[in-house]
Amino acid sequence: MRKTLPSLKHPKRLSFKRKPIQNQIPGKITYVGEGTSEDTVINVISYNEEKVIYNNNCSIEKVLDLVTHEPQFKHWINFIGVHDVEKLSKLGSLLNIHPLVLEDIANTKQRPKLDEFEDYVFFALKMIYHNETDLLIKNHFGLVFNKSYIISFQQSHDIIFNSIRERIHNKVGRIRIRNTDYLFYALIDAVVDNYYNLLETIEEKIQDLEERIIEDASKASTSEIQLLKREILSIRKAVFPAKELINKLQISKHPLYDKSTKAYIADLYDHILQVTENIDIYREIVWGLMDMYMGSLSIKMNEVMKVLTIMSTIFIPLTFLAGIYGMNFDYMPELNIKSGYFIVWGIMILMTALLIFYFRKKKWF
Amino acid sequence: MRKTLPSLKHPKRLSFKRKPIQNQIPGKITYVGEGTSEDTVINVISYNEEKVIYNNNCSIEKVLDLVTHEPQFKHWINFIGVHDVEKLSKLGSLLNIHPLVLEDIANTKQRPKLDEFEDYVFFALKMIYHNETDLLIKNHFGLVFNKSYIISFQQSHDIIFNSIRERIHNKVGRIRIRNTDYLFYALIDAVVDNYYNLLETIEEKIQDLEERIIEDASKASTSEIQLLKREILSIRKAVFPAKELINKLQISKHPLYDKSTKAYIADLYDHILQVTENIDIYREIVWGLMDMYMGSLSIKMNEVMKVLTIMSTIFIPLTFLAGIYGMNFDYMPELNIKSGYFIVWGIMILMTALLIFYFRKKKWF
Amino acid sequence: MRKTLPSLKHPKRLSFKRKPIQNQIPGKITYVGEGTSEDTVINVISYNEEKVIYNNNCSIEKVLDLVTHEPQFKHWINFIGVHDVEKLSKLGSLLNIHPLVLEDIANTKQRPKLDEFEDYVFFALKMIYHNETDLLIKNHFGLVFNKSYIISFQQSHDIIFNSIRERIHNKVGRIRIRNTDYLFYALIDAVVDNYYNLLETIEEKIQDLEERIIEDASKASTSEIQLLKREILSIRKAVFPAKELINKLQISKHPLYDKSTKAYIADLYDHILQVTENIDIYREIVWGLMDMYMGSLSIKMNEVMKVLTIMSTIFIPLTFLAGIYGMNFDYMPELNIKSGYFIVWGIMILMTALLIFYFRKKKWF
Amino acid sequence: MRKTLPSLKHPKRLSFKRKPIQNQIPGKITYVGEGTSEDTVINVISYNEEKVIYNNNCSIEKVLDLVTHEPQFKHWINFIGVHDVEKLSKLGSLLNIHPLVLEDIANTKQRPKLDEFEDYVFFALKMIYHNETDLLIKNHFGLVFNKSYIISFQQSHDIIFNSIRERIHNKVGRIRIRNTDYLFYALIDAVVDNYYNLLETIEEKIQDLEERIIEDASKASTSEIQLLKREILSIRKAVFPAKELINKLQISKHPLYDKSTKAYIADLYDHILQVTENIDIYREIVWGLMDMYMGSLSIKMNEVMKVLTIMSTIFIPLTFLAGIYGMNFDYMPELNIKSGYFIVWGIMILMTALLIFYFRKKKWF
Amino acid sequence: MRKTLPSLKHPKRLSFKRKPIQNQIPGKITYVGEGTSEDTVINVISYNEEKVIYNNNCSIEKVLDLVTHEPQFKHWINFIGVHDVEKLSKLGSLLNIHPLVLEDIANTKQRPKLDEFEDYVFFALKMIYHNETDLLIKNHFGLVFNKSYIISFQQSHDIIFNSIRERIHNKVGRIRIRNTDYLFYALIDAVVDNYYNLLETIEEKIQDLEERIIEDASKASTSEIQLLKREILSIRKAVFPAKELINKLQISKHPLYDKSTKAYIADLYDHILQVTENIDIYREIVWGLMDMYMGSLSIKMNEVMKVLTIMSTIFIPLTFLAGIYGMNFDYMPELNIKSGYFIVWGIMILMTALLIFYFRKKKWF
Repeated sequence: MRKTLPSLKHPKRLSFKRKPIQNQIPGKITYVGEGTSEDTVINVISYNEEKVIYNNNCSIEKVLDLVTHEPQFKHWINFIGVHDVEKLSKLGSLLNIHPLVLEDIANTKQRPKLDEFEDYVFFALKMIYHNETDLLIKNHFGLVFNKSYIISFQQSHDIIFNSIRERIHNKVGRIRIRNTDYLFYALIDAVVDNYYNLLETIEEKIQDLEERIIEDASKASTSEIQLLKREILSIRKAVFPAKELINKLQISKHPLYDKSTKAYIADLYDHILQVTENIDIYREIVWGLMDMYMGSLSIKMNEVMKVLTIMSTIFIPLTFLAGIYGMNFDYMPELNIKSGYFIVWGIMILMTALLIFYFRKKKWF
Repeated sequence: MRKTLPSLKHPKRLSFKRKPIQNQIPGKITYVGEGTSEDTVINVISYNEEKVIYNNNCSIEKVLDLVTHEPQFKHWINFIGVHDVEKLSKLGSLLNIHPLVLEDIANTKQRPKLDEFEDYVFFALKMIYHNETDLLIKNHFGLVFNKSYIISFQQSHDIIFNSIRERIHNKVGRIRIRNTDYLFYALIDAVVDNYYNLLETIEEKIQDLEERIIEDASKASTSEIQLLKREILSIRKAVFPAKELINKLQISKHPLYDKSTKAYIADLYDHILQVTENIDIYREIVWGLMDMYMGSLSIKMNEVMKVLTIMSTIFIPLTFLAGIYGMNFDYMPELNIKSGYFIVWGIMILMTALLIFYFRKKKWF
Repeated sequence: MRKTLPSLKHPKRLSFKRKPIQNQIPGKITYVGEGTSEDTVINVISYNEEKVIYNNNCSIEKVLDLVTHEPQFKHWINFIGVHDVEKLSKLGSLLNIHPLVLEDIANTKQRPKLDEFEDYVFFALKMIYHNETDLLIKNHFGLVFNKSYIISFQQSHDIIFNSIRERIHNKVGRIRIRNTDYLFYALIDAVVDNYYNLLETIEEKIQDLEERIIEDASKASTSEIQLLKREILSIRKAVFPAKELINKLQISKHPLYDKSTKAYIADLYDHILQVTENIDIYREIVWGLMDMYMGSLSIKMNEVMKVLTIMSTIFIPLTFLAGIYGMNFDYMPELNIKSGYFIVWGIMILMTALLIFYFRKKKWF
Repeated sequence: MRKTLPSLKHPKRLSFKRKPIQNQIPGKITYVGEGTSEDTVINVISYNEEKVIYNNNCSIEKVLDLVTHEPQFKHWINFIGVHDVEKLSKLGSLLNIHPLVLEDIANTKQRPKLDEFEDYVFFALKMIYHNETDLLIKNHFGLVFNKSYIISFQQSHDIIFNSIRERIHNKVGRIRIRNTDYLFYALIDAVVDNYYNLLETIEEKIQDLEERIIEDASKASTSEIQLLKREILSIRKAVFPAKELINKLQISKHPLYDKSTKAYIADLYDHILQVTENIDIYREIVWGLMDMYMGSLSIKMNEVMKVLTIMSTIFIPLTFLAGIYGMNFDYMPELNIKSGYFIVWGIMILMTALLIFYFRKKKWF
Repeated sequence: MRKTLPSLKHPKRLSFKRKPIQNQIPGKITYVGEGTSEDTVINVISYNEEKVIYNNNCSIEKVLDLVTHEPQFKHWINFIGVHDVEKLSKLGSLLNIHPLVLEDIANTKQRPKLDEFEDYVFFALKMIYHNETDLLIKNHFGLVFNKSYIISFQQSHDIIFNSIRERIHNKVGRIRIRNTDYLFYALIDAVVDNYYNLLETIEEKIQDLEERIIEDASKASTSEIQLLKREILSIRKAVFPAKELINKLQISKHPLYDKSTKAYIADLYDHILQVTENIDIYREIVWGLMDMYMGSLSIKMNEVMKVLTIMSTIFIPLTFLAGIYGMNFDYMPELNIKSGYFIVWGIMILMTALLIFYFRKKKWF
């Protein structure tokens, strides 16, 4: 059994823990998270209504140059690999980002967060998905944007934003016309939309478990239910703060949000609300699975007990009767009756019939 | 067992899922929901105190014509079949409805919603009922109204509004005299009134389950209870947001709501409150059913065990005694006593009597 | 078992249901509730500090006459039998009561409600009691009062207000001196005071169940616990809105409430608070009963199993031993030993003693 | 078992009930509580910085005289025995206390309450303790104070305030210098401090139960757990309103509270907060006891079942084998083999060894 | 079993109890907590941007001297050993600290607290960790700071602040430049950071229990789960008030907090939020463990029952058959058939095969 559930031991642990750092100095940027061997990459997409320019694998100087000298473009700076603390703090200090913000970006165990500064806004949330080995992955994702650029900080490469890149490239919808706040909205929306896929995976897992429990409780196990509980709690913890933060966005009066974008953020809030409601419903359902499981086991037990009781109740008296006539007393008158043996058989068959009738009446089978 | 519960697998799934659309562009109207083969139909009822005119199967141009050139009428435009996104967006753009509203109308997985714009109001909620195969159906239903017309968007034909049509036709009550806000109220009220039928179905299902569990736990199953739980959670999710929204309606100061209509909306709020309170009561009761079920199984088990124990406890010692006198020792003095056999019978009957007395005293039967 | 619990099936249903009325027109007064054959009766008590005049079985015209031409009296109009919708709406329209209020009076499934109009106040709540067959009865009770009169609408005759009638008749306390708002308070207080009797009945039922479960779980049944749960939920639903409403009364600034009456209303709020707190405590206790029940069953089961195990464990090996010496092998040396039979008996007694000692050490009996 | 739990039946009932009084007139002072034979006693301690004067067993006239003619003293009037409604109402009317306050003092089932009048403050709470027979006693305790005196109304004599009397007598701390509001605070503080003793008793009861359940579930009983639940719910009900009220005291701007006393009240609030937090923790722990109990029973059951199964599984096949060679067929070749008997013994020992090996591998013992 | 769980009895008790002190006078400083034999020590670190001066084992006079005559330094006064009430009150009165604050410092059972006075701020919280014998230790920790100094009151020596001492010594980060409010923040941050270690220990305990339950329920015990529940409740009680207080700090407008420090406090709030969220998740998981445990026991029981039933069901009928032919009737025709014995064997093997086939079909093994 342990072989099929190795995940209970190790990977789940990650989701509830922040590496304890005894000497952590506040404001000192430190990477908190698993080790990674990917290189840090900075890609910049500069776009306006007429043109899109791609600068992949930029140096930080190039980024600064773009941001400073190309005000006619909006720049989407995609910083992939937040474990490179040096690059991160260099970029941060050149663009005047508060050290605590950079610390929050490098700390991949940071909970979702919204910080509105005078001239820029910081938003951190989680991309959550199941990887190919069905492990729940929570990737930390940070956004910093002001009037002219937006920086997205990621732990690793992701396909979640490809659709947005396409929309920019192909000038689909309003994305090229609108300001950076619309791109800001679009990126968060992509993350939240992805939560629907997560919900579906959870839904499927629940249904699979339910079906197996109904069919035969021994096909499921308590540890699977516990694992699912943990998964839901872990998702809940990552998603619920986002709800609150998007509501903050919605009612914020920060000048960076355009009035026309507000309608989209309201829509976004609606989506995250739907996600959180579903998570809570799944939670209740999974909590109920344990009861189903126990009920299923009890039914099985009852069935086993009935078989035992029926067999014992029928044969124990018969065996006793046979035992009686196996006694060696000198004088046992029945033994000498010629048809005695057959009379005993008759009595036995009668007893059996009566007991079967009794069990039938009790609806035991 | 699985044959009687196929519904656990498939149809329930629908209620918790929104089709994941990777490239969904915000504000782009996309139909989200099951496929349907019905044609989209637009029926318009134009009425005022004196007259009612019916325009069934209107073209969009006709609708626009009516709305623009017949200001002496109030127009109820019934748009059936929101899957026809093209017609929907054409109508929307001609009547100046915000694209996000149209998106919410076409997305049948959208949660209930109220959006008050300067010159019109959008309200979306769910019609919920059990279809003829006892499946829970949740139909998305959107309302848009302004001073001169009201548009109701439905997924398919419904009988729920027939009574309102009759009231308009027969000039029953105040509906012909009042403004569109009263019709707006009346349509929502019809949907909420229908929730009472839903509650009754749930009530009956609960009672049926309760009775079967009390009679014989094996007549019910844990999966039925789980199914009922899911159904209640699903209804709860669709109805509870409506409560909040109707409260918003109640305290809204939007000029489209007439003061006299406000009293009716307060009444409506009262109804939805009663519905939600009942749902929560059903929830508690259904959650308690599992305990009843387990208790019922335990009682049965106890009964089975008692039968086994009584039979074994009586006959095992007797069989032992018979076994003793079945031994073949050369010298067993009892065997030679003439009445030995009958003495053994006497001892056996005495033992049985004592054990029965003991069980009686313990109140085992 | 079903014979003792017929109530689970039918009467409970009533408390959770409102008759579904497809074509119900808002503001149209319709009686919702069980049929009744009692005649509608209107009794008026007109009183002031000096005099009390009784007008039993008044016509509506008489009521109007009294209210209009006898301003020196305060009039308590007791309308018994709200099923007579015609009389109700006639009285209502003559006294200028809003149609929605009349609808709420006639709908006996209406939840408790407070509506403060400019010149009168409407309050609806529930009288709850167990009838002689121990069924929970919830009677809808409506109050309308203004400066000069108070109308109490009841479903049927009740003894609950007799004490108030006596106090008016005998000039006990301040009731004759004070305004109608004091009578209004006194009537609500009488209803709330009666809830204490209800609590006591529930308390007794719980104690009875608890004692039976402790004594012998088989004397109670899961359905009784479920029934009690339902009863408490049903009471809770009827009483909790009242708490909220009395709080509203308490903080209301409506000119009809005299300042000196406010102290009494605060006191009333205190009482209803105590009632609701107790209901929630009963709820927790009843929810705990199921656990007690299951525990009680488990103890019983353990006991049964121990008896079975002890008997089997003692006698099965003995029977085996007897079986050994019942074998018919040609050469079994023990059989020829003279005292073999007695040695076997000795071994058997020794084995039994050892097993009994073992069970004693395990504290099985 | 019933003999050890008589308390479940009767005394608990008291704590959830208010005597139902059909004709109770609001504002009419009526004693609600158990009968008592103690005489009502009024003791007055008059003190200021220089002097303390004791007047035990005062008449009401004496009290009035003291209060009116000795303004240089602060008077602590201790009224013991609130069942003497006559004396109570006489004192009340002479000192101008509102009849509803007097009613609340005489009603010992009244929940904790704070009423701030223009020139005096009324506070009622509960002294709770276990009496010598381990019964939970809740004594109603009322305080009325103004600038010059404080009246404490008790149901019976109590040792809880002795320490305060000593502090007044011996001029310990600031009590003699400060105003009546400080004494008011000190009296409430004494009551709240006493709750800590209560918590400790509960803590000990829980630990005792826990230990017994762990050692052997049959040493505890479900009814004990239920009793403890009830006790905690009953305490909770008496203590929680006090928290809210002390918070009200804390934020109140009534001129009777001196600014310097406010710091002490804040401290008091801290204490009551700690008490309520602990009560909720005990609640969770006690609710968990039932699970422990059931788990403990299940473990025991498993153990019993294993013994039964092991014994049966070993001896039933052996008995069968012995039965085979006890058959009386004319031709059974094994019987004639000389060492047949010993071979059978060998087979039996082998079978037993294999089964024991199997159970060992399954870790059954 | 009791030997391995002695901790349930004694040490846990501490965490829920405050020593009951009958005569405790408010504002009189009394040590509440376990006895300790350590000496009270006062160490002062005086630092500014240029210099750090250490004064270990100061007298109170020295402290006063430093604070009064060295305004160019910020002083961190570390008072270790709050049980020395005399020293504590002397220091307190010399530095003008309110007696109630000193009482709260000496009462190690005090809940976390924030008190902002005009010219100083008092903050009390708990250091929590598992000691070397795995006991949960909660050390009370108080902070008082004003413009020029900060006093930290501890129960005993701790290594938790070593990192801060190092940062001061080595001028790491901003700590030497900033005001006392930054040190105040840094000390609280060190305590909160330490909670992460606590969380990890809890996480490990949960995982260890989970794994043991999954492997074999008998390796875990209900008392372990109960113990873990208690531990989490105890931690919860100590940590949750801190959340609220840090939020208060965050929104406080007290002039002692520098604006630049506010950002750090916001960060601190984020950390404590993460801690409390995790505690609640652990709570849910541990509460679920009991279910897992019961499920695990049930599975085991089912398995045991199946073995018993299979063995009994196979051998009881066979034994009966053997018993039949062991009877001593004079005329039993089968006995004389030559191959009778072998036919019986054949029948027995056939019966066994059928039963095995039946159990296979039922998937019992």
